[in-house]
Amino acid sequence: MNPTQASHDTVRAVLWQGSHLRLLDQRLLPAEEAYVDCRSAQEVAEAIRELVVRGAPAIGIAAAWGVVLAAQHDPARLDEALATLRAARPTAVNLMWALDRMQRAIARGADLAALAREAQAIQDEDLVANRRMGAAGAALLGNGVGVLTHCNTGSLATAGFGTALGVIRAGVETGRIARVYAGETRPWLQGARLTMWELLRDGIPATLVADSAAAHLMSTGRVQWVIVGADRIAANGDTANKIGTYQLAIAARHHGVKFMVVAPSSTVDMATASGADIEIELRSPDELFAYGGQRTVVEGAQAWNPVFDVTPASLIDAIVTERGVVEHPDTARMASLFGAG
Amino acid sequence: MNPTQASHDTVRAVLWQGSHLRLLDQRLLPAEEAYVDCRSAQEVAEAIRELVVRGAPAIGIAAAWGVVLAAQHDPARLDEALATLRAARPTAVNLMWALDRMQRAIARGADLAALAREAQAIQDEDLVANRRMGAAGAALLGNGVGVLTHCNTGSLATAGFGTALGVIRAGVETGRIARVYAGETRPWLQGARLTMWELLRDGIPATLVADSAAAHLMSTGRVQWVIVGADRIAANGDTANKIGTYQLAIAARHHGVKFMVVAPSSTVDMATASGADIEIELRSPDELFAYGGQRTVVEGAQAWNPVFDVTPASLIDAIVTERGVVEHPDTARMASLFGAG
Repeated sequence: MNPTQASHDTVRAVLWQGSHLRLLDQRLLPAEEAYVDCRSAQEVAEAIRELVVRGAPAIGIAAAWGVVLAAQHDPARLDEALATLRAARPTAVNLMWALDRMQRAIARGADLAALAREAQAIQDEDLVANRRMGAAGAALLGNGVGVLTHCNTGSLATAGFGTALGVIRAGVETGRIARVYAGETRPWLQGARLTMWELLRDGIPATLVADSAAAHLMSTGRVQWVIVGADRIAANGDTANKIGTYQLAIAARHHGVKFMVVAPSSTVDMATASGADIEIELRSPDELFAYGGQRTVVEGAQAWNPVFDVTPASLIDAIVTERGVVEHPDTARMASLFGAG
Repeated sequence: MNPTQASHDTVRAVLWQGSHLRLLDQRLLPAEEAYVDCRSAQEVAEAIRELVVRGAPAIGIAAAWGVVLAAQHDPARLDEALATLRAARPTAVNLMWALDRMQRAIARGADLAALAREAQAIQDEDLVANRRMGAAGAALLGNGVGVLTHCNTGSLATAGFGTALGVIRAGVETGRIARVYAGETRPWLQGARLTMWELLRDGIPATLVADSAAAHLMSTGRVQWVIVGADRIAANGDTANKIGTYQLAIAARHHGVKFMVVAPSSTVDMATASGADIEIELRSPDELFAYGGQRTVVEGAQAWNPVFDVTPASLIDAIVTERGVVEHPDTARMASLFGAG
């Protein structure tokens, strides 16, 4: 095991403790590594809403354990627990996917132990999927390229290794990637706070840039690929991801920089025809009014705070999943890998 | 005088006090309205470097008063003072333009009173130019449009009224603009801190957005124009402005949103053939590592912090100056208004 593997295997965002769920509080990173313990599905839903845990795959895993907590402590209100978890965040489809899977297990008559095995399987399979996507995505890159990523898609956002950051880890390990640029990712600064923290732990050459510096960065020839995760991929390949992703895709196309989306197949929602049908979560304007707890905007101001946007498939060069890669995605190519909606 | 005029006429970023220069400390806004008094050219240069005063026209005006301070308090070292002021920031050409103008006055044998009159003229003419640009730019708009602006180009960045924000003020006064969206403008948050403060003082309907939400905003049809200022405009119309401007121009073109640059003719540098010849200021990575003293990025991280970028003329629909408007700018059209380089 090389140092890179040793390092990224030590970060776990979601830890099942037998009778409760421990979540690394991602709101406090990198200043503090503190944990939040959840003892009910309601507490898990609250942690998802408040971004204690974030990242589409990690949200799905946490929600699965939330169902186990409900079965353990409050089995009479299992349906209510499922509904509460389902409503915690609207855009990421992994949340719905994981809850559907737990619900099917309940329908099969799974007992508590079987439900815990199902949640553990969701978590374990995610890590396996990430390793596979890492290899598949890295294989698309040239040699010694520069890449730009957005938000955080690493161990903190998944069961480990990461989606887009998994491709980046695999690409660095094999020499295909020479340097990683990370956008800050306002308003929550997942890139600045979380991705830079993960990359530095792994000793990966990494440079932080302001979100609005991306196009200028591309114009200097420093990056050949933009690699991002996804919160929901529609049947035609349109991809909902962290706000700012769409802007990067437009700038990438303008500069001839390639654009890769990396996500497990659980992020693909064949029941959603296109991005126009994806609900975009609006969060509180307060997230734009302060920075690190310090008020930066005059009192009485208004703000518009959509936290996701949709990148049309036409701007995406490759969608990488653990089931395979879809290049130049459209409805037909997506259906050939994922079946009809 | 309507309330709008009453309000924006009360903000002054650069105030000559007879024997010293008072600058509104823009680093502290909107939390605090505090002033920095400069009693030497060196102190003015320091204030420019440290962003106490910012905005290309305001920098030029402050530097002109810096020359007056040197003539008043340290006349033997006037050349040194000019050199120090000239080196304070590299990208904005207004700084060089104002200092050239003061230097010509010195060469003409201007005494202290004449130098003060010259600095006052630079300041007064800027306000007149802004009013003219406001009317000319607003005339290009439709009716009831939404506009997006970047950074701060208002009274704080100029002698008053503003460049891009002057067009916005004129457009709101005449009903041509229904709502203004302001990008946060990382890393210094001039949009969040300063533009929102100015817009709210004037009672202009204003909404703050994350820089990376701009393309998504355009895709919703909420904005018809992007209106920005400039730090230097090359002979072919290529425009250096706050980092992120280029990205907005690419996104605007992608969505069929129009793109307007507003700047006094002192920003036009006919001696610079194209944007490739403009020096882009790189500032400290620390500006991306913390805000308000609170560290957000892991220790040991690297960052790349260019604070300007260049928008090619081909992405600009109109350059508005007090001398006239250049639509679809190129070298020939620029030369017809501004003469050869």
